[in-house]
Amino acid sequence: MVLANERSFQICARPSLMISDNDPRSSPVLDYLKQLHHTHAEFTGGEVATYIPELAKADPNWFAICLVTPDGQVYEVGDSKQQFTIQSISKPFVYGMALEDNTRSEVLAKIGMEPTGDAFNAISLESDTGRPRNPMINAGAIAAAGLVAGKSMSTRLQRILDTFSLYAGRELTVDEGVYSSESTTGHRNRAIGHMLRNFDIVDGDPTPIVDLYFKQCSISVNCRDLGIMAATLANHGVNPVTGKRAIRGEYVESVLSVMGSCGMYDYAGEWLYRVGMPAKSGVAGGIMAVLPGQLGIGIFSPPLDERGNSVRGIKVCDDFSRHFNLHLFNSPHANKAVIRLQYDGSQINSNRVRGDDEVFELRKSGRSIRVYQLQGNLVFSTAEVLVREIMSDLEDKKFVILDLKRTLEVNESACRLFHQLLLKLSAIGITLIFTHTSRAPMLRRYMKLKLGDRAAELYHAFDDNDPALEWCENKLLSELLPGYQSEYQLAPEQYELFQGLTPDEFTIIKGRLLLKTYRKGSVLVNTGDKALELFIVSKGSVSVVVTLASGSQKRLATFSSGMAFGEMALIDNATRSAIVVAETEVECHVLTVETFDALDDDHPHIKIVLLRNLAHSLSTKLRKVNREVSIFDY
Amino acid sequence: MVLANERSFQICARPSLMISDNDPRSSPVLDYLKQLHHTHAEFTGGEVATYIPELAKADPNWFAICLVTPDGQVYEVGDSKQQFTIQSISKPFVYGMALEDNTRSEVLAKIGMEPTGDAFNAISLESDTGRPRNPMINAGAIAAAGLVAGKSMSTRLQRILDTFSLYAGRELTVDEGVYSSESTTGHRNRAIGHMLRNFDIVDGDPTPIVDLYFKQCSISVNCRDLGIMAATLANHGVNPVTGKRAIRGEYVESVLSVMGSCGMYDYAGEWLYRVGMPAKSGVAGGIMAVLPGQLGIGIFSPPLDERGNSVRGIKVCDDFSRHFNLHLFNSPHANKAVIRLQYDGSQINSNRVRGDDEVFELRKSGRSIRVYQLQGNLVFSTAEVLVREIMSDLEDKKFVILDLKRTLEVNESACRLFHQLLLKLSAIGITLIFTHTSRAPMLRRYMKLKLGDRAAELYHAFDDNDPALEWCENKLLSELLPGYQSEYQLAPEQYELFQGLTPDEFTIIKGRLLLKTYRKGSVLVNTGDKALELFIVSKGSVSVVVTLASGSQKRLATFSSGMAFGEMALIDNATRSAIVVAETEVECHVLTVETFDALDDDHPHIKIVLLRNLAHSLSTKLRKVNREVSIFDY
Repeated sequence: MVLANERSFQICARPSLMISDNDPRSSPVLDYLKQLHHTHAEFTGGEVATYIPELAKADPNWFAICLVTPDGQVYEVGDSKQQFTIQSISKPFVYGMALEDNTRSEVLAKIGMEPTGDAFNAISLESDTGRPRNPMINAGAIAAAGLVAGKSMSTRLQRILDTFSLYAGRELTVDEGVYSSESTTGHRNRAIGHMLRNFDIVDGDPTPIVDLYFKQCSISVNCRDLGIMAATLANHGVNPVTGKRAIRGEYVESVLSVMGSCGMYDYAGEWLYRVGMPAKSGVAGGIMAVLPGQLGIGIFSPPLDERGNSVRGIKVCDDFSRHFNLHLFNSPHANKAVIRLQYDGSQINSNRVRGDDEVFELRKSGRSIRVYQLQGNLVFSTAEVLVREIMSDLEDKKFVILDLKRTLEVNESACRLFHQLLLKLSAIGITLIFTHTSRAPMLRRYMKLKLGDRAAELYHAFDDNDPALEWCENKLLSELLPGYQSEYQLAPEQYELFQGLTPDEFTIIKGRLLLKTYRKGSVLVNTGDKALELFIVSKGSVSVVVTLASGSQKRLATFSSGMAFGEMALIDNATRSAIVVAETEVECHVLTVETFDALDDDHPHIKIVLLRNLAHSLSTKLRKVNREVSIFDY
Repeated sequence: MVLANERSFQICARPSLMISDNDPRSSPVLDYLKQLHHTHAEFTGGEVATYIPELAKADPNWFAICLVTPDGQVYEVGDSKQQFTIQSISKPFVYGMALEDNTRSEVLAKIGMEPTGDAFNAISLESDTGRPRNPMINAGAIAAAGLVAGKSMSTRLQRILDTFSLYAGRELTVDEGVYSSESTTGHRNRAIGHMLRNFDIVDGDPTPIVDLYFKQCSISVNCRDLGIMAATLANHGVNPVTGKRAIRGEYVESVLSVMGSCGMYDYAGEWLYRVGMPAKSGVAGGIMAVLPGQLGIGIFSPPLDERGNSVRGIKVCDDFSRHFNLHLFNSPHANKAVIRLQYDGSQINSNRVRGDDEVFELRKSGRSIRVYQLQGNLVFSTAEVLVREIMSDLEDKKFVILDLKRTLEVNESACRLFHQLLLKLSAIGITLIFTHTSRAPMLRRYMKLKLGDRAAELYHAFDDNDPALEWCENKLLSELLPGYQSEYQLAPEQYELFQGLTPDEFTIIKGRLLLKTYRKGSVLVNTGDKALELFIVSKGSVSVVVTLASGSQKRLATFSSGMAFGEMALIDNATRSAIVVAETEVECHVLTVETFDALDDDHPHIKIVLLRNLAHSLSTKLRKVNREVSIFDY
């Protein structure tokens, strides 16, 4: 036996893809599958199964390929709507049901999980216990059928049909013609049933259980169904087209394991070697293959090889895996770049706009706040990298913020490591804080459960980074600045905008200010408003808020006493581009556009000072944003 | 046989981790391994192997665990420096060497890849050909040793020792005591050697090959070595500690495949089911397990179960996999969020600062430039999602930019799909452009090879997004604006800074400007310089460039004729924060800080106009950055 094409990473070794000359806007993936179908359609080896008369009626030219992604995209070519019976491809699904309907130890006591190296119709019972070696051989599959829950055989069959229909996303039924053909000729399986009864692997009369097994094998599917069923397993048990769950997630791994070790009969080892995906074949010509987390494939072509596997099915999977590096063991590094970026409180501050002494203090001591922005999947191997990086850099740290915004999944292993990390950091006086925790629903539950009464004290979570940073900054500033308070009130002569005015000039401009008050929560400025006023906060604080493309709201800045806002629209005559909301009871000094304009002629030097201060403030804001942009480096 | 703990995703079902009370700054991962070691150290089942007298001398209490990540972090607990012989764990490595030293078909003709379901010392030759069923049984391993290249047995042994040393990252040697013990008692293996000779699976006298096999099994390692060897396989064949390659990447998949299907003898199926990692055990008590792309594990504990696998080794792997969801088939979705964000040329522009009519045109027609910022691994399943997204939104598109900056790996499958995409888009007049192609060295080679003579015309690649965007913008503007040219020269009265001055005022200020010229490539402004001048480009163009934290340079802006720069430092008296470089031969009008300041008293109205225009320009820049920030949403 020789492999026609070596699996190789040299570019030249790969055959070229022909482009379909059909629709120029069709998907290149579909083009590829059409080409693959075209290539293998010409092949004529193998024999249609004849051991059941009904199967022998199949047209050897029927040929379909269906690829389904875990987000529900279906690519299908060829006779993808041609019905055929599922046969042995039913076995992994019924095994999954046996796991759902019994304890795991009950199932394992009756069905093993070792490959046999034997042919598909071998009986392969363990000599001492009579336990079938695995659920992919007929004996193990009949034992699994016997473990499906239901008061009567008809309710059991209904449960099987309902479950298979969830996998396929449409209502499936038994092909009565094939069933009666199977039933008439199935003496070998009846013999197996009695052997299983002899060893007490099945209870009571084995005949109805073998009958149930015949019916399960006679369920009628098409190639599209197989692809979607495979993708449901690739998608942790949820049908990606309908969004409905077909099997509890914790059993998918076990189903794939028995497919991986025993799914292709005595071709299982070579299949894993060459194709590298858990798979199952059936004698009607179907093959289903699963690349967990990535895709499901269904193939249908009736002619079989001597091992009972579809000849074209194997060739298609072989090519497809080779052309696109789909082998299970060809996984890219999981742990690279879990830390998207890191920065500290001296580089990036919260959007609370602060006075000079606070800015100075944060620039000096902000290093004690460390932010890790994470990305991708947080599983054991990536969480390990993160935890290692954090533990290696604890010097002078007081706060560690883990920003989960860009994570895709935070699994229980990561939660476990984070829990340990939290306890260790807390023991040396470092506060661990999580932001964007809506990305990790399991984290909150895990921490509450593990920390119990101490959760309120130890588990810190924020919806966004900005409030988390502000919380840390406030804690830090109250430690470092004697008499620090986050709320204070400046007198107008202390306003930034008026710095550089002579006392006389200040008196003049002060006389032209209006004083306005706003209740907490009220809107001072609305998006789209014409800009008629420049505001200076006298008392309280206000926030500038924009609505992002994603629909979520983002605080751009919070201003406290002495700070001016609303100047941009005044300068460029544009309409307001954000809303400004009173965070507290607020008092503002207001300079109207008319007053501002009138200064040109009345008091040009006042105007020059104000414009210079406004330009200075714009320049400061631009520098802050530019610094952030260079750190975030998008 | 009953599983002690069900694999389950319910939080409560998991045992708690005890925190080590040692070093408060130790890694939580190490704490966990210590706890795991502590738990299983007490267990006393199993028997030390006695079939070779030397092995019987092992202390049953020896126990070590070593975990190694694909980036070279080593966690080790227990007797991790205790030497023992590698025994059967040598088999996958020697099989890998057989693949390297022969064509694949030569190897496959002599060694199969099917699990046998038989015990570890079964002979298991195929009845017709005499081919050993797989390379993990002794017969297959001896056949593999016979395929290692070398003129003499001593050069072959040296090749084995050298290769094993690369895997372990230190020089390994044969334990002569164990070797002579193996050699004295190894009659069964000699019998196998003669059987293989009988079937022509080995050439010539089998005795020296069996002797080579004894030596390979007698190579002395410790548990740390095993962990690093496993991590080398997890890391596509490169030792993650030394960075040296131990096996060509294309064979790693095959080595892992035979470990996955046959590595644990007749426990292989249950191992895959429960632990879910390719693994190999040896009778001296070692086990090595690999989670591809994620980690390698070595365990050493001499007492064996009846199948010849280390009892504690199995328990440790079982617990570890269960506690941290390490099962191979428990993969998170690969294709989520491959598109980090997308935007078009009406939302984000290149950093070339443009005149109002160009800005207006790009705002109106920029939608025909579409940018996809990608992240993570580009493999088949993620490239499929991207290609699908692009093909679904071709309306009015002229340019599609794929930004690879945040990708981790772009494999050949992705290149294949991109090549097809490029041809399809080009056929309907859409230009496909790649940026940050240094992330994907294979892409360039692939495209050059596949496109041949047409590569120069069809394959467009840029180092960064900014020049790619500018290139697209220039192409678009030359189509849309009659008489558009990217280089032009404005007269001083057209400068933005002077808009709003009366003709008399303009004459005054014009008289106070200096004219300076700069050669292409010269630096006009340097980081850290004191700001003494405001510049207005008269002819040519200049770029503002900052050096990022990563060390790379980023263009912040390019200014053409009529545009002012250097105003920020002038306003806030800070030193220059970026360098400005002449992109072409450049002529600038310069306003010194003295002239600017003198205007306060001489010509206050001119000063007001200039300050307002500068504030307007700062405001425009701030709005541009804020808009980008809201789109990039960091």
